[in-house]
Amino acid sequence: MTNHWILSFACDDRPGIVHAITGAIVACGGNITESQQFSSADTDRFFMRLQVEADGPREDFERELAPVVERYGMQWQLDDVGRPLRTLVLVSKAGHCLGDMLFRQRAGQLGVDIPLVLSNHPDLGSLATFYDVPFEHLPVTDAASKAAFEARVLEVVEQHDVELVVLARYMQILSPELCARLAGRIVNIHHSFLPGFKGANPYRQAHARGVKLIGATAHFVTSDLDEGPIIEQNVVRVDHAQSPAQLMAIGQDEESRTLTRAVQWISEDRVLLDGQRTIIFR
Amino acid sequence: MTNHWILSFACDDRPGIVHAITGAIVACGGNITESQQFSSADTDRFFMRLQVEADGPREDFERELAPVVERYGMQWQLDDVGRPLRTLVLVSKAGHCLGDMLFRQRAGQLGVDIPLVLSNHPDLGSLATFYDVPFEHLPVTDAASKAAFEARVLEVVEQHDVELVVLARYMQILSPELCARLAGRIVNIHHSFLPGFKGANPYRQAHARGVKLIGATAHFVTSDLDEGPIIEQNVVRVDHAQSPAQLMAIGQDEESRTLTRAVQWISEDRVLLDGQRTIIFR
Amino acid sequence: MTNHWILSFACDDRPGIVHAITGAIVACGGNITESQQFSSADTDRFFMRLQVEADGPREDFERELAPVVERYGMQWQLDDVGRPLRTLVLVSKAGHCLGDMLFRQRAGQLGVDIPLVLSNHPDLGSLATFYDVPFEHLPVTDAASKAAFEARVLEVVEQHDVELVVLARYMQILSPELCARLAGRIVNIHHSFLPGFKGANPYRQAHARGVKLIGATAHFVTSDLDEGPIIEQNVVRVDHAQSPAQLMAIGQDEESRTLTRAVQWISEDRVLLDGQRTIIFR
Amino acid sequence: MTNHWILSFACDDRPGIVHAITGAIVACGGNITESQQFSSADTDRFFMRLQVEADGPREDFERELAPVVERYGMQWQLDDVGRPLRTLVLVSKAGHCLGDMLFRQRAGQLGVDIPLVLSNHPDLGSLATFYDVPFEHLPVTDAASKAAFEARVLEVVEQHDVELVVLARYMQILSPELCARLAGRIVNIHHSFLPGFKGANPYRQAHARGVKLIGATAHFVTSDLDEGPIIEQNVVRVDHAQSPAQLMAIGQDEESRTLTRAVQWISEDRVLLDGQRTIIFR
Repeated sequence: MTNHWILSFACDDRPGIVHAITGAIVACGGNITESQQFSSADTDRFFMRLQVEADGPREDFERELAPVVERYGMQWQLDDVGRPLRTLVLVSKAGHCLGDMLFRQRAGQLGVDIPLVLSNHPDLGSLATFYDVPFEHLPVTDAASKAAFEARVLEVVEQHDVELVVLARYMQILSPELCARLAGRIVNIHHSFLPGFKGANPYRQAHARGVKLIGATAHFVTSDLDEGPIIEQNVVRVDHAQSPAQLMAIGQDEESRTLTRAVQWISEDRVLLDGQRTIIFR
Repeated sequence: MTNHWILSFACDDRPGIVHAITGAIVACGGNITESQQFSSADTDRFFMRLQVEADGPREDFERELAPVVERYGMQWQLDDVGRPLRTLVLVSKAGHCLGDMLFRQRAGQLGVDIPLVLSNHPDLGSLATFYDVPFEHLPVTDAASKAAFEARVLEVVEQHDVELVVLARYMQILSPELCARLAGRIVNIHHSFLPGFKGANPYRQAHARGVKLIGATAHFVTSDLDEGPIIEQNVVRVDHAQSPAQLMAIGQDEESRTLTRAVQWISEDRVLLDGQRTIIFR
Repeated sequence: MTNHWILSFACDDRPGIVHAITGAIVACGGNITESQQFSSADTDRFFMRLQVEADGPREDFERELAPVVERYGMQWQLDDVGRPLRTLVLVSKAGHCLGDMLFRQRAGQLGVDIPLVLSNHPDLGSLATFYDVPFEHLPVTDAASKAAFEARVLEVVEQHDVELVVLARYMQILSPELCARLAGRIVNIHHSFLPGFKGANPYRQAHARGVKLIGATAHFVTSDLDEGPIIEQNVVRVDHAQSPAQLMAIGQDEESRTLTRAVQWISEDRVLLDGQRTIIFR
Repeated sequence: MTNHWILSFACDDRPGIVHAITGAIVACGGNITESQQFSSADTDRFFMRLQVEADGPREDFERELAPVVERYGMQWQLDDVGRPLRTLVLVSKAGHCLGDMLFRQRAGQLGVDIPLVLSNHPDLGSLATFYDVPFEHLPVTDAASKAAFEARVLEVVEQHDVELVVLARYMQILSPELCARLAGRIVNIHHSFLPGFKGANPYRQAHARGVKLIGATAHFVTSDLDEGPIIEQNVVRVDHAQSPAQLMAIGQDEESRTLTRAVQWISEDRVLLDGQRTIIFR
């Protein structure tokens, strides 16, 4: 049987890395079907993502990789092509992002396995149910219920070995402790404007200012709110004739497709972290 | 001889405006070749831009317009199609925006007549000279020389009946007095990022943060720096492999084309002000 | 009660049209909320679309319109804003276009009322059923069954007063008689490439030729196959690494969104015919 | 002194290629700064482009490469990063493509060295002269003068060791003999429409048909007119209000930027041929 793996790794940049890693692939009879690499001038780190076909078992490949990984001090990951990412989704009331993810997943376009949709509101239960995905409602009204919600998040993460937590318009701020515990494993979506707007109703502000472009940014969550490494951004052109409500509808479409694309890239191991930046091997 | 005019106006929105204005056009035998209108729900103002062909003289048309303009309290402007806009350009050292404007003007794609390029640095003199546009260098090094520079701006505006002042990467902050004197007649260009970055080297910050889109915003200048009504915005996709220098080159291309397009729309009377917003009749 | 109408019309271009039509609007106390017009230099025809708010009944408005319509020989249509378009959808096996239309309709983003989905294959029955839309399967295997299918189309059109027939990847060629009977009321979607490809598997040909853009075209159906007036086109960038299957998936996404957008514009009376061209009042 | 090379090659796909080639790089102390590869499922060919920094001389690198190149039967090329491509430009009367290339070259954005602009019309002589590029006018009016023109092309190619011939809106059809002699070394630009139009005035036809997108395609020239491997394509959105002349102006902008980009990629060895397809390592 032929196996098809994704090997991704990062290490300090120095000569011979590609030669060494491809040596391990040759040694176990593997064939490279996709390969991308990047040397970061910012951090002097080297990043690589390989897709490899081979007939032998995974153990053989790992045995060949071991000395290379050791020599170069690589942070590495070996994954099966097409394996769905175990993903916990947090939502509140707005369903556009959840709806798009579930639709794409069922259509076979998004490689995620969702053990649970967890929400601080009951509104989206029927949507999850339609797609046969478990849904749980846990109100967040004060510090205690918020702590309970976050404890439940960690419990689900542990129980289902969750690899990614997606904030699909989850409108509560996560505690710094949770952000730290799940660093690099939480992705968020928010609207984006040129220029940025602070405060309650950004679409109304964007309309008042007459912006010509509105968009969305998907990023990893850090305890520094809305400031984590950016994964994907999109914008769309608008004009003076559109009302705040229309701007919001357009912005939500951008949020959906931007978040779904970010999650897809993560599920395919295409997103690597280089300090505060992401390397995207599209 | 057939005349071809642009009539643009704004007034409080109430029934009968279009009927009245087109009545004046019919009365002088005019034909409407282009027409756009917008009712602002924000300010209850009505905006319209018409292109009109007629055989009679301008005085006849103005005589028919007079009672309509009076009745509805219109702010209005009547212009000849194709008349170049008298435009003063201010620059500092970077020539990408000036070069694009002069190239487009000579190619017949940008309807401006530039009596002078005024700069606080000598660097771009030869570029202006190549395009046979007068250039003047007036250093700005302290409060006195800055005041002298701004006095020269006003002098040129008066002497040449300048209709638009373009800050084509002019790197000095204009005084609130000058902004007030020339309100709605100064346009500026600046780079734009999602999210925005403050401080000295935004392209370096954008690179450090790993932004995926960079762009530019053309806007009217108010005394509130970089906060005037937005005229046009563009973005372009970038990725992790691009250096800060490459991001800057890409950003400058966006600045050039965004500024030139904004100036073109203004020269064709396509940009009207609705409070802090622009109405763009493209 | 306030009414909100869409008035669209076409007539030979001559002075006074806008003045006359707005006179009728003023006379019944109407207010124009949206207005677009176009003079075709190709056919000397004038086209206009107006949205009008008024308190009085439709009969009053029509009474004022009558003499204007008469005088200028207008082809005209008066519609209620937001009234869903009665739409018959024809499909075969591929469900991407149907799925998108039904999803958008349910989400309130597409103003159509679908009395029936009619197909020459049974495959998409469950999709229609999920969205509570009637589905009928009528095989087409020879000349007789094809005639029966087309007779059923005309029957449904008559019975439900259908305004638009959408070929949502319906893979049978319509007879010239049906095209003529429903001229200007059938819309089709097909993939588009630069350059075009004839024959069985265009995505394979596009891949073989290494095209960099693939897209889709929505157009009105005439008896001249794939040659009717174009309503909307979109393209997306592809590269050498994408397989024919991936190109097809990308192309289908473009087909869905292009067709849905075309249908939406038709449902809002934004598409007018100027000979072989469409005027799109977006 | 540090050298910076581009190594590009193609060979039959089999295991061990990357390991072998990176072995040669390691052996001469080289460092990989950019790397892209592609396995063609169509032809079972493997393509790779590497940028390599090394301190030693080119001979050392070539000595290490020799056995690898031999073993895998590679077609290969070793180039200095930034070396300008020796480029002969052929033009007729339209100057938009030539103007853009010369402007970009002078601005340091296009790595070409142009020993001659050769034209069958005198019109563009002053444009070339402004940019200090030699210009030669050789009329083509019959078979004999056409043969003389093509003989001059081959003479210039030989004399200046020309690597690329750019047809920057050169409106004569090249002979099959010339196409064959310079196979893979001639690039052409032509307008592109959805659908395609044959015959004399495509912009007029595109207008008559009401197309919504117009664009341009840059491709290698083969004796099969307009049918060679595609390098780059772009489109831009247009609408019913644009005249044939405006469509042509828009189309020419797309032609300029598409051709310049294609030439830039070729100058950076980013374009490889896989049968009738191009591999673009952007």
